[in-house]
Amino acid sequence: MGKFIVIGERIHCISPVIRKAMAERDPEPILKRAKEQLDAGATYLDLNIGPAESDGEELMQWGVKLLQENFDNVPLALDTANMKAIEAGIKVYNRAKGKPIVNSADAGDRLNYIDLAAANDAIVIALCSANGIAADNDERMMHCQNMLEHGLCLGMEAEDLWFDPLFLVIKGMQDKQMEVLEAIKMFSDMGLNSTGGLSNNSNGMPKHIRPIMDSAMVAMSMMQGLTSAIVNPCDLRLMETIKSCDIIKNNNLYADSYLEI
Amino acid sequence: MGKFIVIGERIHCISPVIRKAMAERDPEPILKRAKEQLDAGATYLDLNIGPAESDGEELMQWGVKLLQENFDNVPLALDTANMKAIEAGIKVYNRAKGKPIVNSADAGDRLNYIDLAAANDAIVIALCSANGIAADNDERMMHCQNMLEHGLCLGMEAEDLWFDPLFLVIKGMQDKQMEVLEAIKMFSDMGLNSTGGLSNNSNGMPKHIRPIMDSAMVAMSMMQGLTSAIVNPCDLRLMETIKSCDIIKNNNLYADSYLEI
Repeated sequence: MGKFIVIGERIHCISPVIRKAMAERDPEPILKRAKEQLDAGATYLDLNIGPAESDGEELMQWGVKLLQENFDNVPLALDTANMKAIEAGIKVYNRAKGKPIVNSADAGDRLNYIDLAAANDAIVIALCSANGIAADNDERMMHCQNMLEHGLCLGMEAEDLWFDPLFLVIKGMQDKQMEVLEAIKMFSDMGLNSTGGLSNNSNGMPKHIRPIMDSAMVAMSMMQGLTSAIVNPCDLRLMETIKSCDIIKNNNLYADSYLEI
Repeated sequence: MGKFIVIGERIHCISPVIRKAMAERDPEPILKRAKEQLDAGATYLDLNIGPAESDGEELMQWGVKLLQENFDNVPLALDTANMKAIEAGIKVYNRAKGKPIVNSADAGDRLNYIDLAAANDAIVIALCSANGIAADNDERMMHCQNMLEHGLCLGMEAEDLWFDPLFLVIKGMQDKQMEVLEAIKMFSDMGLNSTGGLSNNSNGMPKHIRPIMDSAMVAMSMMQGLTSAIVNPCDLRLMETIKSCDIIKNNNLYADSYLEI
């Protein structure tokens, strides 16, 4: 098994600093966050430009080039509701360190993001929901099967579909957490890759609790076979937990210095 | 599902302070460690008096009465190679807060600890090894089956046998960790309770790493269905992780104050 893949989530237009930097094409705030995340152990960086309806194509290309030129072709997840912007980003993307990730398809209105990934030899995050949260794992796995078949029919390799169970907020859906974890185990038993916005589980909790809860959740998820997550790599406790689980799973050879690597 | 049960491991004659206190029948150091562990969230306290060949019966009775009288009949695990001492301890044990735990039987020379538990309506920790570490899960589960049948034939309830997979040290047996975790899942799938000396996994690691590794291990173990562990409850990170996993598993209702309870 390969090591767990951390996709850094912090270059996101929901942040006022990043939104402003994107609007003004100001490299510094974006490069700063990229460096922080890579130093903390991220493999991929998510580049979320928001809806970007007017200038999405040019903005995505600017962002892709900015990050890859400054960080040795760092692999990226291209994240926007504007499909043309993703396609434009892939056109200038350098694959030396890994395929681009299309973030994200679902089994409903965004099924065609799989077509986009297939046409561009990209990885795609496949959210196992259609219109709203899946009612149960029967529905979650039906979406998974449908998206898998859709991708395979378009010539994709199964390993390039990364299935997202949709992590649910504990405050409000506490009784659904084990179901999400069971879905991850089903993906894993099928030999599929998986990912997701893991820290959604701790949404609305006091700030000091979130790294504690997220760490517990990532360890349980890695036990179930989760292969990747979209998280904040600057959360030290979370990264320590991921590295420790990779040791326990024998994905990485133990050394006393394993936390520093 | 009930909440995870923490058995505090710190009243152990391997500690010079505790050994001296036991030898001198000095209550204070023992009461201090008991209070620390209970304040930190332990449910059971382990009382390890060592081999105690000469005065084990009297020492165990002294220890049991000391702890139960000072801490509202706190439930105890009676831990020694001297079987008569365990029996003597049970004679003065108050069951108001839970049955005593006999620590521990195995499938080899210590099989008769199950008889001791059966004769005294106690819980028994059943280590799934005979002579040396089990070679694989076939052997581990054979020991589990044999001990379960042995206990049931003696009239025990299955829930009173707590199966211990034997946590193995990562430094030296890194490639065996997932097997131990799979054994826990097998116990859980059989509806059995389980426990173990979890921090053995991080034996020999730098001191600052151990709480990090133990926390990852306990979360993965709880995902697999571990119902209890013999640990240091004064390890804050470990206890935070256990409480968080109990929330994720819906064993305890979430409140913003859940870490303080």
